[in-house]
Amino acid sequence: MSTKAAMAAILLGIPASILAQAPSYADILAKSPKTDWAPLDPENTLYMDIPQGRVIILLAPRYAPLHVANIRKLARARYWDGAAIVRVQDNYVVQWQWPDGRGPKLAEATAPMTPEFDRRLASDIPFTALPDPDTYAPEVGFSEGFPVVRDPSLGLTWMAHCYGMVGAGRADSPESGSGAELYAVIGHAPRHLDRNVALVGRVIQGIELFSSLPRGSGGLGMYADSTKRVPIRSVRLAADLPESERVQLEMLRTESATFQQVIASRRTRRETWFVQPTGKINVCNVPLPVRTPGR
Amino acid sequence: MSTKAAMAAILLGIPASILAQAPSYADILAKSPKTDWAPLDPENTLYMDIPQGRVIILLAPRYAPLHVANIRKLARARYWDGAAIVRVQDNYVVQWQWPDGRGPKLAEATAPMTPEFDRRLASDIPFTALPDPDTYAPEVGFSEGFPVVRDPSLGLTWMAHCYGMVGAGRADSPESGSGAELYAVIGHAPRHLDRNVALVGRVIQGIELFSSLPRGSGGLGMYADSTKRVPIRSVRLAADLPESERVQLEMLRTESATFQQVIASRRTRRETWFVQPTGKINVCNVPLPVRTPGR
Repeated sequence: MSTKAAMAAILLGIPASILAQAPSYADILAKSPKTDWAPLDPENTLYMDIPQGRVIILLAPRYAPLHVANIRKLARARYWDGAAIVRVQDNYVVQWQWPDGRGPKLAEATAPMTPEFDRRLASDIPFTALPDPDTYAPEVGFSEGFPVVRDPSLGLTWMAHCYGMVGAGRADSPESGSGAELYAVIGHAPRHLDRNVALVGRVIQGIELFSSLPRGSGGLGMYADSTKRVPIRSVRLAADLPESERVQLEMLRTESATFQQVIASRRTRRETWFVQPTGKINVCNVPLPVRTPGR
Repeated sequence: MSTKAAMAAILLGIPASILAQAPSYADILAKSPKTDWAPLDPENTLYMDIPQGRVIILLAPRYAPLHVANIRKLARARYWDGAAIVRVQDNYVVQWQWPDGRGPKLAEATAPMTPEFDRRLASDIPFTALPDPDTYAPEVGFSEGFPVVRDPSLGLTWMAHCYGMVGAGRADSPESGSGAELYAVIGHAPRHLDRNVALVGRVIQGIELFSSLPRGSGGLGMYADSTKRVPIRSVRLAADLPESERVQLEMLRTESATFQQVIASRRTRRETWFVQPTGKINVCNVPLPVRTPGR
């Protein structure tokens, strides 16, 4: 171990031997048992095709069951084919929907929806806790691939608005977000939206296709010029495609021992470049490893 | 709200309250005394011109005096004219420099530099504290327009890696970051970089020109195809231009009463749309208001 790493170990009170033995991030994933990975559930996986490529979204039925059921119906009805990304607000969100009141007249797109801004805490909800303080909530961590918050005093849990999270846009009425209008976070976590709007999932692959779009020049990042809108070719549920047309991806189980190693390696940075290993991590800074099986 | 705005709100699914209440945030600024605003100091303002437009960077000589002095020298020598953005890593950073070892052979670009990763706490350093917990540090707030951290137990203060912050890239040696290679944060705050690298300022205007660039396909977001690099037309210190060619901008003083109102309005969201006003805010979620004087 380098002198610098030894110094860092001394400063942080971490035995130098442990730092020296800690495997690299790549090593952690390479050595992980196959059972620590989960294939994406086709019933909860959306393929959204735009001219820039494919964005893959994992839905979270445990946290937003009604929204997810509605989104499945809309995808099966090909509701979004021909809709558009209408809003790209810097350091905030990308939003897609049917603009100008157009689009298929489906009841699922406009019917009032029970708000799913949070859930009752229950013992059967998996939770991998992070040890470090959070600005917004008493407990943060992960559940089945999603960044989540828990507040035992309220007896509630909810997903956190981290980079890449997908939510159901709504108007003033809390019942107005059906899932027909969706957004994805492309900036610093807007955690003030937590419990104000229903998160429904997260982008698993292709977030850079959203985040690199030109920003809208109108208010709230709307594309003031409608010709700038990004057309949506199709949105499909993976389960609705033949297996041969599905994208083979698996994600690291956030309940696994390997994910604990990922957290540890990111909390305490032992790469030579770091002079301060930090020893803390924000819930939105923990990556979710995703891979193509067999590679 | 105008009928047209109300219609737009309905058609686009934007909560009418947000459109209606947006002026209330603007009201805080509109009613602010002129003395709560500060013009950008021309000695600390960089204009970086790329094909997409102009990015304006405010330097922080109090936190990185040696780096800022060196950056001024490099700008005066027109060091970056013809250099390029060589790296765009999603949810992380944009980085610019002379690629492939090219560029003017200036001593300022390669001489070892005293690391300025933190500063001694001193009573003459302005500090507007935020009341809410932070994952990474015991105290967070603002100083002369910059998000900062304080650790009284260490007797140190440093700037925080929030969205839009600009830092001096370095190799493994802590002395290797001269300021010739700079980066800007375009994703969720990578606070684990705090105290590991010298921040030198922040983007004040035009960050969306960086954040919407295509992501690099190489390792660490490098543009693997050198033809994808974004050429830098020029980087100039505002003080080196005739006053008539300077961009007239002023920023809200983070030591002002108006900035306290901005913080309060963002901590507790009173717009009708919000069902949970939150009552907390992360240091990287507080905006720095900037305006053109006289408008």
